[in-house]
This record gives sequence, C-alpha cells and structure tokens, in this order.
Amino acid sequence: MTYCVGIGVQAGLVFTSDSRTNAGVDAASTHSKMRTYGVPGERQFVLTWAGNLATTQGVVAQIERDMREEAETSLLTVKNLGEAAEYIGQISLIEQEKNTGGGPAFEASFLVGGEVAGAKCRCYMVYAEGNYIESSHQTPFLQVGESKYGKPILDRVLTMSTPLEQAAMCALVSMDATMRSNLTVGPPIEMYVYEAGSLQPGRYRIFEEDDEYLWNLKRSWNMKVKAAFAEMPPITWVH
Amino acid sequence: MTYCVGIGVQAGLVFTSDSRTNAGVDAASTHSKMRTYGVPGERQFVLTWAGNLATTQGVVAQIERDMREEAETSLLTVKNLGEAAEYIGQISLIEQEKNTGGGPAFEASFLVGGEVAGAKCRCYMVYAEGNYIESSHQTPFLQVGESKYGKPILDRVLTMSTPLEQAAMCALVSMDATMRSNLTVGPPIEMYVYEAGSLQPGRYRIFEEDDEYLWNLKRSWNMKVKAAFAEMPPITWVH
Repeated sequence: MTYCVGIGVQAGLVFTSDSRTNAGVDAASTHSKMRTYGVPGERQFVLTWAGNLATTQGVVAQIERDMREEAETSLLTVKNLGEAAEYIGQISLIEQEKNTGGGPAFEASFLVGGEVAGAKCRCYMVYAEGNYIESSHQTPFLQVGESKYGKPILDRVLTMSTPLEQAAMCALVSMDATMRSNLTVGPPIEMYVYEAGSLQPGRYRIFEEDDEYLWNLKRSWNMKVKAAFAEMPPITWVH
Repeated sequence: MTYCVGIGVQAGLVFTSDSRTNAGVDAASTHSKMRTYGVPGERQFVLTWAGNLATTQGVVAQIERDMREEAETSLLTVKNLGEAAEYIGQISLIEQEKNTGGGPAFEASFLVGGEVAGAKCRCYMVYAEGNYIESSHQTPFLQVGESKYGKPILDRVLTMSTPLEQAAMCALVSMDATMRSNLTVGPPIEMYVYEAGSLQPGRYRIFEEDDEYLWNLKRSWNMKVKAAFAEMPPITWVH
C-alpha cells in the first residue's frame, strides 16, 4: 500500500508520499514514489503515485524517455497541468496493458501538480482508467493509496488560503496518522513544496524514520490534541 | 454503513453509535443501534452493532426474549462479559443462518460492554463469525463499521487512564470525523457512559443533527486543531 497527498492552495503546492512498497508483509521494501521535473522560469512538475510498482516505474521511465528524446508530447511540451494529466493517463493505460493485458493487479494512480508559464498552478489526480480530476476550492487536496486515516485532519484544516508551511505540517500529521494505522505505509517520507508563480524548483525534504523533526512534530501534535480536550466544553447530559 | 466505538478505560465505558442505515444512498433511514440492559446493583450491559439490519434486529429481539422468558442462558444469567460475548456470538450465528443460509450480505458484528457483580468491567467485540476479542491496555477501544476515518484521534488520545468525560469527547470527535467523510454514517448519535464499579445504569445522551452541544464541540475542535498548527515547530528545510 501507499499514501500520497497532493495539496493545491493559493500559495502553491504541497506533495508528500511514503516509500514503502509491499507484496505481502514479508515482501516489503523501500522505493521513492516522488519525482520532480522542471525548466526554471518555464515549467515545474511534481509527481507521486500509488499502485503496481512495475506499472509506476514503467510510467516514470516513459515520462523521462519522452523528455530525453524530445517526443512530440512530453512534460516539456504540455501547455498546462490538464494536458500533463491527460498525457500521464495515456502512458499509464499503455503501461498497464503492455505486458499483462491489464487488470486490477497492475493498476496505478498518480497525483501531478505544477505550473507552466502562461497557465495556472494546478493539482490533478489521474485514475487507473486514465481519466483525471482536479482539486477544488472546496476540497483543496487529493489523495491516492490508503486515504481514509489521513483524511479528517485535511478536511478540518485546509482551505485555499492555508499558508504553505501550515499545509505542509498538516500533510505530515495526515501521513503520521496513516503510518500509525497501516503497516504497509512507511518511511522515509518525501515532501515537496512549490510556491505558485515562482516557476523555480520547490523545497524538497526527506524524513527518515528517526528524523528528529518528524518525532518532534508527532510528539508536539499528540500533546496539543490531548490538551485541546481539556479545554473543550463539557458534555451537557440531559438524563 | 455504520460507525460504533466502544471504549474501555479504568474509569469505565464509553459507547457511541450513529443511526443511519442504508441499502444504497436513496434507501437510507434511521434506526437506533444501541441498547442498554441491567439489574441495578447486579449487572449492566451496553450493546451496539453494525451490519445487516434484519440480522441485528433479530439478535436484539432474541436477547430480549431470552431475558423475558428466563432462558437458561441470557444477559441475566451470564457470569461475566466474556460469557456475554460468547452468548451474543452464538445468537448472531443462528440469526445470520436462519432465513438465508448466511453469506456476507447478512453478516453483523457487535460491541458489548458492561459489568457483572463479582467480575470486572469489560468491553468486547463479537465478529460476524461469532468469535470475539476484548479491548486491551494498549488499545483501549474497539470499533465496528466504517472505522478508518475515526481511528487516528482515538489512537492519539486514549489510554487506560483517560477520564470518562474526555474519552466521551474523543468518541464524539471520532464520530464527527467519520460522518464528515462517509455519507452513510449519520445522526442522531447515541452515547452511553458507564462508571466502572457502579453497577448502576450509566448516563445516556442522544445528539440530534442540530444538537447545540455537538455543533459547539465540532466548531471548538476545528478551531483548536487549526490553532495548534500555528504553534507547531516550523519545518527544518535541509535543501
């Protein structure tokens, strides 16, 4: 399993992904599920994914080959993030079918965010079927993989006006909630924060299992949550 | 779908359940999923459930019939909560098989908590298969139904020494997180709080959709969560 979040707020993008892959609890290993690509001043992209490892590696390899070989359509040629999502969906469908004829075991889904000069900073999710949706003003985030444990904190906190730094912390708390509840989601955690309008590479950070900041965040968060209950209005009992 | 939590801490029990039942989004209605039974000074029980409505109603009817007709085994005769869980598991298996021959569509699971004089206050989950587990010191809660959205807050907050009032608020926040994310979990919310050792009926409260306390709790919680992020340690960026 996997957990990835893509957040698209006015200030920019926050993407985070775990690094555990598994085919059963004793066939677990570590693979990055994030790539960033860009041409400074012109275009910037961040990509995360969930699903079959062979499919996702195939898609990433094709994306990179298309750029290297200056294909007609690649992340170097798309005019906006919608076109990028369409392009990734098409490659994904081909990869899912290629060696296997397809089927649920070979499915993969992707989050792609970024900005192309002349278009807006955007965040998309590409389904296994190749179609895609965009994050919205009402729900400024998208998730792939094991999404339920980490969703309530995103629901409570994120709005389009949430600052990037706060959105990044919220994504880490969401990731922490998921790792605690699902063994197949695990560190290292990768995080990428892109500032809308900059068209420059964003800030990247990898959090290993023993990362001091991650431990502090988690401890500090648990303490604050417990303290909050002490200040809540007492339940009014009717009977 | 359904969401029920049973919390067993040193101070006693907190049980909460939603009231939405559905067979598709346009076949939704409202049914209580909680019952309490007891003989003051001798025994007290609280029961919640998830699963097929016909099965769960059948089980509850049988439990009540067994008490009324003074059956050899009933909630009036069991010596402890383990025996109660065993008894409910057996009835549940019979009900699942009765008219249908069984199958996933007719499954049901139960949470049962309470205390019998001479034994300890306990909290059990009875699986659809009729077997059962007890809540533990490490994880002093059990869930049935749509359990993922509401689990992280329980994980972060609950320990065996959590006071009953705080455990009750935590259960409500967990329920709120679930209702927000899953349309098939809905109000009214029922809550029952039993004080260990009392052997007297606990406090019961029903929260309707427009309940003022529930709205205040939710608003207050969302504000505190957002405020907490403002006080968190800023992310240390390496690159």
